[in-house]
Amino acid sequence: MAHHEFVPEHYHNTLGWHEPVLEVSPGDSVSTTTVDARGRDRDGHQAAVRGNPQTGPFYVTGAEPGDALAVTLDLVRPNRPWGFTATAVAPNVLDPGFRPRFDDDLEVTRWEVDVEAGSVRLSEPEGPLSRLALPLDPMVGCFGVAPERGQAISTATSHRHGGNMDYRGFRQGVTVWFPVFAPGALFHIGDGHAVQGDGEIVGTGVEISFDVRFTLDLVKGSSIEWPRAEDDTWLMTAGNARPLDQCVQHATTEMLRWLETDHGLDARTAHLLLGQAVAYDVGNIYDPAYTMICKVRKSHVEAIRGQAG
Amino acid sequence: MAHHEFVPEHYHNTLGWHEPVLEVSPGDSVSTTTVDARGRDRDGHQAAVRGNPQTGPFYVTGAEPGDALAVTLDLVRPNRPWGFTATAVAPNVLDPGFRPRFDDDLEVTRWEVDVEAGSVRLSEPEGPLSRLALPLDPMVGCFGVAPERGQAISTATSHRHGGNMDYRGFRQGVTVWFPVFAPGALFHIGDGHAVQGDGEIVGTGVEISFDVRFTLDLVKGSSIEWPRAEDDTWLMTAGNARPLDQCVQHATTEMLRWLETDHGLDARTAHLLLGQAVAYDVGNIYDPAYTMICKVRKSHVEAIRGQAG
Amino acid sequence: MAHHEFVPEHYHNTLGWHEPVLEVSPGDSVSTTTVDARGRDRDGHQAAVRGNPQTGPFYVTGAEPGDALAVTLDLVRPNRPWGFTATAVAPNVLDPGFRPRFDDDLEVTRWEVDVEAGSVRLSEPEGPLSRLALPLDPMVGCFGVAPERGQAISTATSHRHGGNMDYRGFRQGVTVWFPVFAPGALFHIGDGHAVQGDGEIVGTGVEISFDVRFTLDLVKGSSIEWPRAEDDTWLMTAGNARPLDQCVQHATTEMLRWLETDHGLDARTAHLLLGQAVAYDVGNIYDPAYTMICKVRKSHVEAIRGQAG
Amino acid sequence: MAHHEFVPEHYHNTLGWHEPVLEVSPGDSVSTTTVDARGRDRDGHQAAVRGNPQTGPFYVTGAEPGDALAVTLDLVRPNRPWGFTATAVAPNVLDPGFRPRFDDDLEVTRWEVDVEAGSVRLSEPEGPLSRLALPLDPMVGCFGVAPERGQAISTATSHRHGGNMDYRGFRQGVTVWFPVFAPGALFHIGDGHAVQGDGEIVGTGVEISFDVRFTLDLVKGSSIEWPRAEDDTWLMTAGNARPLDQCVQHATTEMLRWLETDHGLDARTAHLLLGQAVAYDVGNIYDPAYTMICKVRKSHVEAIRGQAG
Repeated sequence: MAHHEFVPEHYHNTLGWHEPVLEVSPGDSVSTTTVDARGRDRDGHQAAVRGNPQTGPFYVTGAEPGDALAVTLDLVRPNRPWGFTATAVAPNVLDPGFRPRFDDDLEVTRWEVDVEAGSVRLSEPEGPLSRLALPLDPMVGCFGVAPERGQAISTATSHRHGGNMDYRGFRQGVTVWFPVFAPGALFHIGDGHAVQGDGEIVGTGVEISFDVRFTLDLVKGSSIEWPRAEDDTWLMTAGNARPLDQCVQHATTEMLRWLETDHGLDARTAHLLLGQAVAYDVGNIYDPAYTMICKVRKSHVEAIRGQAG
Repeated sequence: MAHHEFVPEHYHNTLGWHEPVLEVSPGDSVSTTTVDARGRDRDGHQAAVRGNPQTGPFYVTGAEPGDALAVTLDLVRPNRPWGFTATAVAPNVLDPGFRPRFDDDLEVTRWEVDVEAGSVRLSEPEGPLSRLALPLDPMVGCFGVAPERGQAISTATSHRHGGNMDYRGFRQGVTVWFPVFAPGALFHIGDGHAVQGDGEIVGTGVEISFDVRFTLDLVKGSSIEWPRAEDDTWLMTAGNARPLDQCVQHATTEMLRWLETDHGLDARTAHLLLGQAVAYDVGNIYDPAYTMICKVRKSHVEAIRGQAG
Repeated sequence: MAHHEFVPEHYHNTLGWHEPVLEVSPGDSVSTTTVDARGRDRDGHQAAVRGNPQTGPFYVTGAEPGDALAVTLDLVRPNRPWGFTATAVAPNVLDPGFRPRFDDDLEVTRWEVDVEAGSVRLSEPEGPLSRLALPLDPMVGCFGVAPERGQAISTATSHRHGGNMDYRGFRQGVTVWFPVFAPGALFHIGDGHAVQGDGEIVGTGVEISFDVRFTLDLVKGSSIEWPRAEDDTWLMTAGNARPLDQCVQHATTEMLRWLETDHGLDARTAHLLLGQAVAYDVGNIYDPAYTMICKVRKSHVEAIRGQAG
Repeated sequence: MAHHEFVPEHYHNTLGWHEPVLEVSPGDSVSTTTVDARGRDRDGHQAAVRGNPQTGPFYVTGAEPGDALAVTLDLVRPNRPWGFTATAVAPNVLDPGFRPRFDDDLEVTRWEVDVEAGSVRLSEPEGPLSRLALPLDPMVGCFGVAPERGQAISTATSHRHGGNMDYRGFRQGVTVWFPVFAPGALFHIGDGHAVQGDGEIVGTGVEISFDVRFTLDLVKGSSIEWPRAEDDTWLMTAGNARPLDQCVQHATTEMLRWLETDHGLDARTAHLLLGQAVAYDVGNIYDPAYTMICKVRKSHVEAIRGQAG
C-alpha cells in the first residue's frame, strides 16, 4: 500500500490508451494536482490545452479487461482562491427558441473560493448575486479509464469508461468503480469544481485547480458494465448517453445487476425495492452525453439482508 | 374562506371540462377523499373505474383562462391500512432487451401501511423485503386542472395542466400553481401513494385511498406556463413531456421566467444562480409523459434579494 | 354501400367523443369539405376556430372498441386557388441556439395553387422562390377517430387514434386503418395541405380547404394498436410519440404484428425481411407528438407468400 | 490526378489519428478493397478483428483543420458471392418489453449475392424468404476522417467525422464531404453492404467485402460542420447523434448553412424551400449514434437560382 507523490508534466484532452505516467500497485494511493477546465494551474499559468485536461494516466499493475478499477477520492480540494464559470444557461436545456433576456456573449465570470471558510461567492461586490455565499462542495467533473476498443474519447463527453459526468456526488470520500478495458486500466483525472449546480447547465461548475489524493484498487473478474459508486449513505450507478431516458435505462439496469449479483438480493426483491425506494440524481446535461445516477440507500440493502433495521 | 366537506359520488378517468361537483370561492378549502389507482375506496370497495380516478372537478369562482390556480395540500393521509404495488421495474426504464430475472406476470403485491407508526412494509412476513420498513411519505400522484382547448386528457399522462406527475415532493404542505384553461379552473385530485420511489418505475407507488384537505386560491393574470410549486425549502417547476430532456427544457425555462418575473431577479443573476445552485428531481418516468422538477432554494433567492443571508 | 353528401355546419378542435354529425353504414362513402388549418373555407370565410378544425365526427354503425376502422381517401382535392404557410423552420428541428438569419416575425406567406396545372407556387412574382413550381401533392394532415378512455385530444397532436400526423403518404388512394375506441368509431377529418415537405418543419404545409370523399369500413375484432395504411406500393404503419426513436419503436413493432398476424409471415421471416428491406418516412416533427412511418413493399410480401416474383 | 492501387495489410477498428498507409494528392483516386464487418476478405479469410474494420487511413497532401475532404465513391462493388446478416430486429427499435416471436440466439444468416444478376437472396432454398430476390444496392456503411481533438472513435458509432452512418444513399456515384480535423484528413473506409434496409435495424446489412475506388479532393477553408453529400438528384446532409430528434437538428441546420453559404439562397428562401420541399431519410438506428439525412432536390435549388425550371 505505497503512497506516491506525482507532479504532472503534461495532460491529455482525451481518455485513451496513452503512455502511463506512473505505475502503481493495487491498493496504492497517489497525491497529485489537476488543472482547471481551461488548463490553468494553481498559479493561473496555462499548463495545458483547454478542455478538461486530465492528469495521468496511471497504470495499475495487474489490471486487465474484465476487471473493475476501484477509485477512492481521499482528498478533493481547490488549491487556489478563485474559479470561473460561464454565465448563461445552455440552449439545450431551455425550450427551443427561448432566448435569455440578457446579452451573454459567452461571458466568463470569476468567483472567489474560500476553502477555509467553505464558501464560494461571485467576484462582483456590488452585484446582487454576491450577497449569496454558496457552500463549498468540491467535486471531480471528469475522470475514468481508457475506453474499450482502443478508443481515445474527448474529455467533453462520457460513456461506460466514465469521463465528463459532472456529478455532484463524486466528491471527497466516494469510491467509484470503472470497468477496465485496457491493460493497467489507465486512470485519468481532472476538471475540478469548487461547487456546481445539478446538470452543469451553464456548461461549467466553478472551475478550479485541485490538490487530489486517490487510492486505486482492483476487483478481478468483475461484471460491471457502467460506473458504480458508494459513499456513506448510497449505492450509486451512472448511465452516460442521450437522451436522459437512455441514461436512466443504463443506470437502473446496472443497479439491478449490482443488487442481484454482488449484494445478494433475489431479483423480485431488487425490483420491489427499487420501485418504492430508488432515487435519481442528474449529472451532466450540457455535453454530448448526459449522465443520470440511480441510487439506493445502503441501509435499505442492509436491512433486507438482515444486517440491520 | 369557507371550508367544504365533500363526499364524492363519481370519479373521472380524464382531466377535462367536466361538470363541476362543487363551486368554491378563492381561498376556500375542501375536505374530501380519493380512491386508489384501481378505484377502490377506504373499505376496499370498487367505487370507480381503474386508472387513477379523480375526485372533482371543483369549480373556483372567478377563475378564467390566463389566471393561475393555487392549490395547497393541507392534508394528505392514507385512510386505510393497506396499499398495493406492481412488482417489476418497467421495460422502458431498463436497457432494451434486458429481461428481469424473475417471472413477473404483472403480479400485484400488497403492503401494510401504518399511519400511526409512519411506516410501510411488504405484506410478506417471511420474505426478505419485509425486514425493511420504509418511512411513510404520502404524496398525490395525479392532480391538476382541465387542459387547454377543451381537451379531456387521460389520468395516465401529464402536460401543462398537471396530471399524472407522480412527484414525491407533492406531499402535505406544498402549494402548487396550475395555469387555468377552463372557466372555474376545474380542479381534479386522486392517485394517492403512501410512499413511492423516484420515477414510479414499477408503474405504481404504494397505491392507497386518501383523506385530503386542500385550499384553492387564484392568481389573476398570471403568466405561468407549467406547474410551479413551493414548500418550506424549495421553489419548484415541473416539465411534463418525453424525452426527459424535453422535461428539463420546460421546467428550467419556467424557473427562469418565475425568478425573473415574480421574484425580481435580473436575467443574468437568474442564469448564474441556476448554473451553480439548481437541483433536479425526477417525477414519473413510467407513463407516456415523463416529469422533471427544477428546484431552487428559497433561501438563495432571499439572500440575493437582500432579505437574508 | 350508400353515398352521402355532407355539408358541415360546425367543426371540432379536438378528436373526441363528440356528438356525431352523420351515421353511415360500413362500406358507405361520404363527400364533404374541410376548412384550412386556420378555419377558413373555400371562400376564405372564417368558418371555424383556428387549429386544424375537423369535419365530423362520422358514426359508423356497428363499430365497437376492438374493431378497426378502414378509411379510404377516394378524393383529396383543394377547392380554392390559394393556400398559406409559415415561413421559418421551427426551433425544435434546428440546433439549440441556432438562430435563423432573417427576421421571421411568425410571418404567414401566401401560395398560388393551380389544381388544373398541378402546381403550387409562392405568391411573390419578384421573389427567387417563385421561380420554382412545386408539384401539387394534396394530403390530409389531421384525421382519425375518438381516442381511448373518453379522451378529447387536441388536433395539434397525435397518438394511437391518429390525429395530426402530417404524413405526405396520406394522399388520395390510400387506405388507413385506425383502432376503434368509441362506439361508432367517430371519424374526424381536416387540415388539408396542397403540398408539404417531410416533417412539416415550418409548422405548416401549404394550408388549404379541401373537397374530400372517403369510404368508411370496418374490420371486426382487429388487433391493431397503431394506425396502419396501404397504397398501391406499400404497407405502412404509423408511430406517434416523442422522441422519434419511440415513434420508430411503435411503428416497427406494429409492422411485425401486421406481417405475422395478418400477412401470414412467420416471425423469423418477418424480421429478416424488415432487416434488409424496411423503409422509414418522417411525418410531423413539429408538434408535441412526432410521427414516423415504417414501410414494406407489398410486392416483397407477395413474393414471399408465393403470390408473385 | 494520379491513380493509386493500394493493397491493405492491416485494418483499424477506430477512426483515429493513425499512421497513414498512403499519401495522395488532392484529386487523386485510389483503388483498394475492404473486408466485411467481421473482418473477412474476399476469400472468407479472417484478415482483421471484427467490428467494421477500416482500410486506411489515407493522407491527403495539404489537408488541414478547417478544410473539407471530398470523397467520391467511383466504384462500390462486392467482390465475393456471399454475405451475412443478423436475424432479429434489435430491441432498441421495438417497443420496450416486446419480444420477438421466435428464438433468435443472435443467429447469423447467409445470403447469396449475384453481382452480375444484381440480386441478393437468402441462402435457404426451402425457406419462404428465398422466394424474394432483393435488388443488389451496394453501399458503404462506415467511412470518414480522423475525428476532432485527437480522438479515436469506434467504428460502431458516428459523429461529425462520419463513421458508422449506414445510409443507403452512400452508394456508387455519391460525393461526400467531411470536415477535416487532423493534418492530411486521414480517410478511412470499410463495412460494405450488398443491400440494407433503412436503419440497419437488425444490426447488419448483407455484410460483404468490397472492391472500391474513390477520389479524394479538398475544399480549402470550408465551414462544413457535419457530413454533406451530393448525387445526381439530391443535396444531402447527415446528423449523427441520439435521439433521432437531435440528428434532425444537426442535419437540418447544416442544410440551411449549405444553402445559404454555398448555394446563394437568402435565408428566408432557404427556410421556405425546406418547409415545403425537404425530405428526410433514416440512416443507422441500431448503434450508439443514430443518423438522419436531410435532403433537397438539386433541381429545386437550380430553379430558384434561375439556372433551370
